[in-house]
Amino acid sequence: MPKKETGNLSFLFNPRSVAIVGASADGGKPGHKLLRNLVSMGYHGKIFPVNPNLKSIDEWKCYSTVGEIEEEVELVATLVSARKAVEVAKQIETRNLSRHDVKAIVCIAGGFRELGTKEGSDLETELSSILTRSGVRLVGPNCLGVIDTSTGITTNFDVGSYKKGGACVLTQSGAFGNSFLLWASKIGLVGLDKFVSLGNMSDVDMIDVMRELENDPNAKVVAIYLEGHPRAREFLAEIKRISSTKPVVILKVGKTEVGRRSARSHTGSIAGDDLIYGGAFKQYGAIRTESVNEFYDTIRAFEKQPVPQGNRVAVLTHIGGPGTICLDALGSFQELELARISEETKEKLKKMLSPAATIAKPEGYIDVTAAHSEHLHNQVLELLFGESEVDSVIQILGPSTFLDQKLLAREIADAYRSQKGQKKTLLNVVMFAGEAEECRRALENASLPTFEFPDMVARVLRNMVLYTNQASR
Amino acid sequence: MPKKETGNLSFLFNPRSVAIVGASADGGKPGHKLLRNLVSMGYHGKIFPVNPNLKSIDEWKCYSTVGEIEEEVELVATLVSARKAVEVAKQIETRNLSRHDVKAIVCIAGGFRELGTKEGSDLETELSSILTRSGVRLVGPNCLGVIDTSTGITTNFDVGSYKKGGACVLTQSGAFGNSFLLWASKIGLVGLDKFVSLGNMSDVDMIDVMRELENDPNAKVVAIYLEGHPRAREFLAEIKRISSTKPVVILKVGKTEVGRRSARSHTGSIAGDDLIYGGAFKQYGAIRTESVNEFYDTIRAFEKQPVPQGNRVAVLTHIGGPGTICLDALGSFQELELARISEETKEKLKKMLSPAATIAKPEGYIDVTAAHSEHLHNQVLELLFGESEVDSVIQILGPSTFLDQKLLAREIADAYRSQKGQKKTLLNVVMFAGEAEECRRALENASLPTFEFPDMVARVLRNMVLYTNQASR
Repeated sequence: MPKKETGNLSFLFNPRSVAIVGASADGGKPGHKLLRNLVSMGYHGKIFPVNPNLKSIDEWKCYSTVGEIEEEVELVATLVSARKAVEVAKQIETRNLSRHDVKAIVCIAGGFRELGTKEGSDLETELSSILTRSGVRLVGPNCLGVIDTSTGITTNFDVGSYKKGGACVLTQSGAFGNSFLLWASKIGLVGLDKFVSLGNMSDVDMIDVMRELENDPNAKVVAIYLEGHPRAREFLAEIKRISSTKPVVILKVGKTEVGRRSARSHTGSIAGDDLIYGGAFKQYGAIRTESVNEFYDTIRAFEKQPVPQGNRVAVLTHIGGPGTICLDALGSFQELELARISEETKEKLKKMLSPAATIAKPEGYIDVTAAHSEHLHNQVLELLFGESEVDSVIQILGPSTFLDQKLLAREIADAYRSQKGQKKTLLNVVMFAGEAEECRRALENASLPTFEFPDMVARVLRNMVLYTNQASR
Repeated sequence: MPKKETGNLSFLFNPRSVAIVGASADGGKPGHKLLRNLVSMGYHGKIFPVNPNLKSIDEWKCYSTVGEIEEEVELVATLVSARKAVEVAKQIETRNLSRHDVKAIVCIAGGFRELGTKEGSDLETELSSILTRSGVRLVGPNCLGVIDTSTGITTNFDVGSYKKGGACVLTQSGAFGNSFLLWASKIGLVGLDKFVSLGNMSDVDMIDVMRELENDPNAKVVAIYLEGHPRAREFLAEIKRISSTKPVVILKVGKTEVGRRSARSHTGSIAGDDLIYGGAFKQYGAIRTESVNEFYDTIRAFEKQPVPQGNRVAVLTHIGGPGTICLDALGSFQELELARISEETKEKLKKMLSPAATIAKPEGYIDVTAAHSEHLHNQVLELLFGESEVDSVIQILGPSTFLDQKLLAREIADAYRSQKGQKKTLLNVVMFAGEAEECRRALENASLPTFEFPDMVARVLRNMVLYTNQASR
């Protein structure tokens, strides 16, 4: 089967209408959740539930088949089983002979090639063939499909609504993609532009989606969970192209034999030679993260903050232990350098801070000690942002019950916003996580990403600087 | 000054009475919080607030000086500044000439040797000399002192109360120790036996505390945050001794020059040759963690779960991506091995699970797929616990809105509890963190630790197996 030409995927991200095959009246079923999610996401297009056993679902008329829908249908999402999904494809084929309106289908069910059986493989080939000859693009099978927060389209029954932002999540595992969003959703740790769960990538694959994102002004950072790509060479070429315009953050499994074997039975992926992937990512400036936590946190930093102009970092804290842990981690990355602070600013800090404070020991590090206040963080940050040799600031907070968390966050956000010209990068670590939710939430709302661990933030800043270095090549 | 002989530290962990110098009537001040924390921790001893400007604080009579207290005073905690703390030491010296009752002082203020100034260093020497000749042990200065959840004693004004358990936290950074407890407190991620923030370790040091913990039946796991130990050789000997009876989990900074410099200005510690520490930890079976997250999670696993009897692990999930990520991580640790599942059990699983399920591909890995239910997790876990070649089980959950989270947790806890004889280790990853708090909380309450990241859990299990291997040597 020849590979279809990649075209514009607007019918996926901005369809005028969507049919939901397998829609349900039962509030506990995916086929109902999905309808509700389209509403809560604010989807403005038309919604057509399809279920032969129902006349209506809540406010919607319900159809027996896709063929029956009188109005234009641009996108179809099927929640039915593998075998039934093939029947739906046949209905679409028939419909398109006269109507030519269905542009794409999201096939959520598994039970295809990933089973590793002839039956599963044959079923996927059949599904794919029918759709190819009907001119219909296929997302999946074995996936959760798309979310676009700009248009409100969703085929994801797990994520009810999501705040807008610049992160684009491309994932071969729907559950993994959802895990990130649901992990982040509670206090708004990341804003989302697009989410695409690609599953078996029988047709629409990572390359297609990345081409779409290249010129998407909303797409600030592209996050990819990869098990393996069938068109590896083109995939890597696309990684190169898109990395030149925006950061690409990757989590790829397949470093070990058991990981590769598992990928095969999960999405039928061939993980490929991990070293080749890894080398290419590095060469092309894509950022490969080593852990799930690093993946999550790096995406969030790029989504909310500007990329630093250089590699010189100042660290500000009032808790010496976490500060020391952060410095120890920073010191292990040759890409980063502690910023030199001017003598003039050191003098100002000496007057401003307690005699017990640590000023530029080591260079670029300031521990104001427990004698801190909400406003002091503002004052010291303003001084650091004013330093010509500082490109970014890591601030490590442990907001105790003695501080007003909201005021602290406001003072920090004020210092950040009052920067003149190109803003410097500010990453905040908020320790005391169980008690500091208010502070975290307020900082996140001000587009200041917060992190739980003072060593992970060093890794995140290093990833940002890797991108800075790549962009300046 | 000769090093004092290490004795029994029961006056620190179970004092009959405590005087709080710098007690305050202002609810927002540490000197008041500490009084309240003694109440909320359920401390049964007598409490004597000391503040020359107050006659009483709430229900307590307030004293002008420690010398004035008529009743027996066993422990003194001072919240006053460095210079004033020296005065308190002099008062104690005078008191002890006649009363001989004060056994120890916790000096919370900084402003001593860690400043790197002659003045600070002289002040610490003076404080220490006075106390030595008075026969009074000194915790700190520059610390938060102790918590013991059995006796309810606390000198920590930041942690209001804490649930009992088996973790002992020894830390040179009070803020870092608190960060862990406050991070964990929200959904009861760890139970605490003792907390000791040691600061500058002018007298009482890690060795003294470890000797106390050796024979403490409540102390299940010893967690150490270390910047550097002045008596390095004895410290490492003590690490060896205590590691033979219980797991010791260590986070040590000083791998890099900037980290070492920072440690010096934080607690005046000489980080020492990191390679020597690292080598000794490894040789003695202490577990050195590479990141804060790994430190937190490893402590929690040891605190709530039995150590595995061997290195053979089964992985159970219903979400293939996170499952694959976990396997890829497991595969990178040569200490771990995927468990062989018997043919009999494989047959049972085939009958029990959906045709799309992955059974033992790779060996030891089961993905039940989305066709799961609360009870299915119970059934599969029971089968795995019954396998003779399984030593531990990692279960990776992504509880969607379609499952009853409490029921799911109950079914899992039932399977765990119904094991006959020596229980196998069960570690649960709960993805979808923003939505799955109920499930996590219920599992944690059943002493089943939950983790956020499917790769970190592999690292945690490996740490447990490292201890298993050490214990069996």
